[in-house]
Amino acid sequence: MAQRHLDPTGPQSRHAGAVTGDALAGYLRAQATEFLRALRLHRETGGGTAIGSNGSNGPEDPVDAARALRRSVRRISGSLHTFRPLLDPDWSEAMRPELAWLSGTLAMEHAYAARLERLLLALHRLSGAVFPAQSGSVAPSDTGPPATQERGNLTVGAAKAGALLERQLTLARTRAHSTALQCLGSSRFHAVADNIALLASEVPLTPGAPSTGLHPLATAAEERLTDAVTALPLVVAGSPYNAEALIHGLSPDPAPHPQDAPWHQVRLLLRLHRYALEVLLHESAPVDVRLLAAGQALDRHRDAAEAAGAAAQAARTPRIAPATAYALGVLHADQRHEVEAARFAFQQSWQKQAVRTP
Amino acid sequence: MAQRHLDPTGPQSRHAGAVTGDALAGYLRAQATEFLRALRLHRETGGGTAIGSNGSNGPEDPVDAARALRRSVRRISGSLHTFRPLLDPDWSEAMRPELAWLSGTLAMEHAYAARLERLLLALHRLSGAVFPAQSGSVAPSDTGPPATQERGNLTVGAAKAGALLERQLTLARTRAHSTALQCLGSSRFHAVADNIALLASEVPLTPGAPSTGLHPLATAAEERLTDAVTALPLVVAGSPYNAEALIHGLSPDPAPHPQDAPWHQVRLLLRLHRYALEVLLHESAPVDVRLLAAGQALDRHRDAAEAAGAAAQAARTPRIAPATAYALGVLHADQRHEVEAARFAFQQSWQKQAVRTP
Repeated sequence: MAQRHLDPTGPQSRHAGAVTGDALAGYLRAQATEFLRALRLHRETGGGTAIGSNGSNGPEDPVDAARALRRSVRRISGSLHTFRPLLDPDWSEAMRPELAWLSGTLAMEHAYAARLERLLLALHRLSGAVFPAQSGSVAPSDTGPPATQERGNLTVGAAKAGALLERQLTLARTRAHSTALQCLGSSRFHAVADNIALLASEVPLTPGAPSTGLHPLATAAEERLTDAVTALPLVVAGSPYNAEALIHGLSPDPAPHPQDAPWHQVRLLLRLHRYALEVLLHESAPVDVRLLAAGQALDRHRDAAEAAGAAAQAARTPRIAPATAYALGVLHADQRHEVEAARFAFQQSWQKQAVRTP
Repeated sequence: MAQRHLDPTGPQSRHAGAVTGDALAGYLRAQATEFLRALRLHRETGGGTAIGSNGSNGPEDPVDAARALRRSVRRISGSLHTFRPLLDPDWSEAMRPELAWLSGTLAMEHAYAARLERLLLALHRLSGAVFPAQSGSVAPSDTGPPATQERGNLTVGAAKAGALLERQLTLARTRAHSTALQCLGSSRFHAVADNIALLASEVPLTPGAPSTGLHPLATAAEERLTDAVTALPLVVAGSPYNAEALIHGLSPDPAPHPQDAPWHQVRLLLRLHRYALEVLLHESAPVDVRLLAAGQALDRHRDAAEAAGAAAQAARTPRIAPATAYALGVLHADQRHEVEAARFAFQQSWQKQAVRTP
């Protein structure tokens, strides 16, 4: 899975202060190359079966290939956003919505699988059952989630809730899988892929861009992040057990919690900041672990918020048993507390960060 | 509500190191006097109606009178336990189970009322409704809880859950009230009251007790507390959002969470330690605020654990609607997180305490 980017400028020329549009071009070429490689692997491995390829130098199964596809699309999309003034406007304005569509479409299948895994793990934790895979990484796509194999340890309500969530989220995941396959076979996708293929050899920079410094645009991205973080209720979030995340847990409004939106926004801005740093510092530079921790907290925030929503949604299924609804209520509240815990974790890592950088 | 104890030894003679059985006798006489005064007031105010008396120097309504009764019984009972070797064994062994019975019986009505109030407040918080009485003290006994007056803000599930809890806990409270009235009219109670009346004039100390120091017994009580605290999982409790309290939230075992028991035990030992300090330091001495904070955290722990249990119990009512069960599930999880928050608060206040006393 190690990535080697074709980098014509070389790491030597990449000291901070001298980073120009050339570096952006190198980064985009590398990401485009990575995209094409992941796409080829995705096709070779069937794009939907669990049979790994024999390649030893990259993604080995369609799950890894799909992840690499999403990864490169996000980075190209993010760089086009942050460094927009350096890129040919007609080309980049045409590309951006297409990349957003592609990124969104490819993300759904994994999101549903991860959500189900998260909810089944939580149900097991709440039932006091020991779950052997709990400490491992989430790998829900290839085999059935281990959770389903030990349903026997669950109470009737928890087991029924698990079965209901599994039915609903597996259906959603299957549909997302079909949609992703349709997407990858569509002429719209082929047009995007052709554009990315062109990017791998020729990045459409504006005339002055190759010698224009990247720092002002990267700094602007960082400032957008900092401003958004400043607007977050971090004092509340830093006070443990503030009970904020569940405050509308029984609200009649079925829409996603409005209090989550600013956190989701910070998550996106943090990602853009991280990608901008990758362009500036070369992707192989050591990762800022605190930035990574903050990002992971926000990923957890998003995942828990969506899992809580899925539990609440499942509870609105007609004619479910009271015991099922009760288990879904406990599960919903548990995930909303995960949301609160993630905000606390973000506040903690961000505080360290603020102290570190004067 | 200020209490003036008849204290024959006077505060002057009460410096630490010289405190003997005489001080214990003074404390017990004062508590017995307080008990008799509260009992008289309870009878004068009818013991069950909300009409306040005109007394200006003490408890003014049956709720206050009942509280003062419980308060003095707990202190007499606790002192008999801690300073047992200094008291006539026949007398104290006969008294202790009677005081435990009385204390338990008198506590139930208030407990059910407070539990209902806590659960209705939580339902309103979870529904995003603003609850005017939220910042005030809990005073559930006299008027109907304000929560019930704005049911309109709740979702159907939350409203039905609230109505169900109100029905069940009001019934339990009414029964507890009858039981308490029966208790106060029983010959068993009259025997205890007669014994306490004797205590107000004559404390049955052992022959050597008046000149025996109280410190070793008080220290032993403190050590029992310290040992029990040491056995608590304080490292986990001090790590916010550890998700321990809900770990058996959907367990098939309907019994109270076994993980709560050591905390309940510490709550009782902390109370005994506090009463021993009252005997040693004179009750009018400034209260150790950290000890008070630790005790309040454990009270909150107990209250939240019992409220969570009541929500789970209500969810087992036959033929409830799924929306009701869902709201009860959210409520249960919310209260279990309150349990976790209370453990965190205890850990924080205890840590400060440990740092303070070398």
